[in-house]
Amino acid sequence: MRYELYYWPTIQGRGEYVRLALEDAGATYDDVARGSGGTGAMMQMMGQGPTPAFAPPFLKAGKLVIAQVANILLFLGSRHGLAPKTEAGKLWVHQLQLTITDLVAEIHDTHHPLGPSLYYEDQRAPAKKRSEEFWNERVPKYLGYFEGLLGANGGSYVTGRRITYVDLSLFQIVDGLCYAFPNRMKAFERKIPGLGALHDRIAARPRIKAYLDSDRRIAFNEDGIFRRYKALDE
Amino acid sequence: MRYELYYWPTIQGRGEYVRLALEDAGATYDDVARGSGGTGAMMQMMGQGPTPAFAPPFLKAGKLVIAQVANILLFLGSRHGLAPKTEAGKLWVHQLQLTITDLVAEIHDTHHPLGPSLYYEDQRAPAKKRSEEFWNERVPKYLGYFEGLLGANGGSYVTGRRITYVDLSLFQIVDGLCYAFPNRMKAFERKIPGLGALHDRIAARPRIKAYLDSDRRIAFNEDGIFRRYKALDE
Repeated sequence: MRYELYYWPTIQGRGEYVRLALEDAGATYDDVARGSGGTGAMMQMMGQGPTPAFAPPFLKAGKLVIAQVANILLFLGSRHGLAPKTEAGKLWVHQLQLTITDLVAEIHDTHHPLGPSLYYEDQRAPAKKRSEEFWNERVPKYLGYFEGLLGANGGSYVTGRRITYVDLSLFQIVDGLCYAFPNRMKAFERKIPGLGALHDRIAARPRIKAYLDSDRRIAFNEDGIFRRYKALDE
Repeated sequence: MRYELYYWPTIQGRGEYVRLALEDAGATYDDVARGSGGTGAMMQMMGQGPTPAFAPPFLKAGKLVIAQVANILLFLGSRHGLAPKTEAGKLWVHQLQLTITDLVAEIHDTHHPLGPSLYYEDQRAPAKKRSEEFWNERVPKYLGYFEGLLGANGGSYVTGRRITYVDLSLFQIVDGLCYAFPNRMKAFERKIPGLGALHDRIAARPRIKAYLDSDRRIAFNEDGIFRRYKALDE
C-alpha cells in the first residue's frame, strides 16, 4: 500500500515520528504537502471525510484517514513489525509512546509557555523560566525513566530484543534535544548512556541512515518542536 | 474481573476519565489509593512489574498493568462496549481521545504555564496570559471541533448513535470548564449547544448519575486539572 502522509512541509515537528516509522519500515509514501500541491493540498484534505483530523499530522492508508501521532504509530506498528503482536505488548508500547507524546508537548512548551498562538519573541522571559524547570525537573524524570527501562531490558531496545516505534521516537527525542539544547545536553548526556547508544544504533540502521542522509529529512529549524534558542540553553 | 485503579486519592485529575468509563460500564473496581493503603500503596506499585507507569493513573486488570489515560480507555472500550468493534472505528475513537488528552494538557497549563513543578502562586501573571490565549484561541478551536462532529452525526454522540468513552470524557471537559471558568463558560456556552446537551445527557445516565451523587465522585478542587481561580476567569 502506498501511504499519504499529511504534515507541514518545512518542519520535522510531530510528523517526524511518523516519517521515521515509515522510513524504517521501508514503506512507500508521499509526503503530500512537500509535493506540488503544498500545504493547500493538506488543508483541503484536513476537514474532509468521516474522521477529520483536529490537526496534522494525519495518514491516509487506503480508505482510512488516521490522525494523532501515537494513533498512527499504533496502526503502523502492527502492520510493519514495529510493535509486538500480543495485546499486552501492543498496550505497553503504546503506553510508552503516549509518555513520549507528553514529553514532546513539554518540549514545545519550553519555547511556548504562554501557548501555541503567540510568538516565542512575545514570551522570552517565561520561556527561560520554563526551560530551567524543564531541565531541572522534567528531563531527568522522563529520560531517567526510559534509561531505566533500557537498563532493565539489557540495553538493546526499550522493550527488549526487538525494535519498536518507541525506539525510533526516542532517537528523535535525543537527536532533537542535542540540536535544541547543545550545552545542557552535553552536561546531561553522561546520565543517559543507554539512550545515547540507542540513538546511535538507530541512526546506523541502513534505512534510517539513508533517510537521514537524504533530502527527505528536513533539517531542524526554529519553526519546529526542537528550537535552538541560545537564551534557553545557558 | 475486579479492576484496580491507581490514582491520586484527593483529586479527579486525569484519573477521572478512567473512573467515568468504569462507572458507566458498571465495572467492579477498587480505587486503591482511596482505600486503607492510601497513596503509599499506589507509589509502591508504580515502579513495579514489566510495564511500570511513568505517572498515575494506571489500571491493573488481571496480570496487565496499563498506564496513560487514553491507553486505559482503549483497553476498557473494547471490553465494555464503549468503543466500536472495527479497527477503523477503534482508531477513530482513540484519535478523538488523544485530541482530548492534548486539550487536558492545555487546560492544566492555564494555571501552570511555567511547568508542573512550580506552584500556581509562583506563576500568576503568566497563568493569566496563558488563560487569555487559551480562551481566545484554543477553546473555540477544540470545542468547535467536537461541536462540529456532534452536529455532523446528528447530535446524539460524537461518533454517531452509540456512546463511546469519548462522550464520557467530553462530559468531564464541559463539567470541568464550567467549574473552573464559570464566567467565561457562561459567555461561551451558547456556541456549543450540542456539547451542552451531550453533557446533560451523560449526567442523566443512570450509572453516571448514581456515581456523581455518590462519595466516589471527588469534588472539584484547586489541586486538580480544573481549578477555579478568580483571576483566570475574568
